[in-house]
Amino acid sequence: MKMKQQRRSDCPISVALETIGDTWSLLIIRDIVYFGKKTYGEFLASPEKMATNILANRLFLLEQKQILIRESMGNRKGRESFRLTEKGLALIPIVLEMAAWGGTYDSDTGAPQAWLKIVRKDREKVLRLIYQTVRNGGSIFVGKNRVVDKLGLKL
Amino acid sequence: MKMKQQRRSDCPISVALETIGDTWSLLIIRDIVYFGKKTYGEFLASPEKMATNILANRLFLLEQKQILIRESMGNRKGRESFRLTEKGLALIPIVLEMAAWGGTYDSDTGAPQAWLKIVRKDREKVLRLIYQTVRNGGSIFVGKNRVVDKLGLKL
Repeated sequence: MKMKQQRRSDCPISVALETIGDTWSLLIIRDIVYFGKKTYGEFLASPEKMATNILANRLFLLEQKQILIRESMGNRKGRESFRLTEKGLALIPIVLEMAAWGGTYDSDTGAPQAWLKIVRKDREKVLRLIYQTVRNGGSIFVGKNRVVDKLGLKL
Repeated sequence: MKMKQQRRSDCPISVALETIGDTWSLLIIRDIVYFGKKTYGEFLASPEKMATNILANRLFLLEQKQILIRESMGNRKGRESFRLTEKGLALIPIVLEMAAWGGTYDSDTGAPQAWLKIVRKDREKVLRLIYQTVRNGGSIFVGKNRVVDKLGLKL
């Protein structure tokens, strides 16, 4: 009840924006979905150069909002990895639409046109493949378990 | 060229987030698309109670980034209206996915379930209808030219 009183409105878009309506949260989701990143150090190495305190804060908030799950990796202190919950996986269509918009209206982005094209053409199929792959620890572009390979895309 | 040097990375998702990666910009887009709002005063009256200086700043930035077009209404000073460019209309799928996510993972939102259901089921058709309606000055839920009426939805 306390959460409800604090929020700005009952509009589902406003509710979504209160959770992910900042630049950094969705870049962490992007890092997991597109590039298979899992650790604090991997997120920190992304080209947008997120500040350490912001990254730690966003990971904490995303865990608290049940979008990410934090897991310890082995016994080494400070070694943790993050993966998406089902609620977090459900953010994939939002990230995909942002990529399509950014890739369409800014011709200088690094977006592979072949990828944007197949997402437009076979959206439902590609989405299912992304969900399934990311759920199993893979990603769209990086690693052994890649969505682009399953689609036969040479990028 | 200056714009390019200043941006954080060439990732299309990051580029999109630099434009609309804040809470308020997308709420203005929501106000136009869902509720047919057009003026500063109408945006200001939204339940999220945006501060006047933030609203003025976001309208300025969205105009500068060619997402909104500002038009004067008649001769009365200070009477201006805003409408979406094609680049702005192309944000509709992002807002729609945010509504779906917020409406799914927060059961207390005001999202009409019948609406969320038809968007899920007939996404392409509904999207086409929204584009066409908003382009002609209508909106999803409010006014004489409403998407919900065209879909025969009683909400």
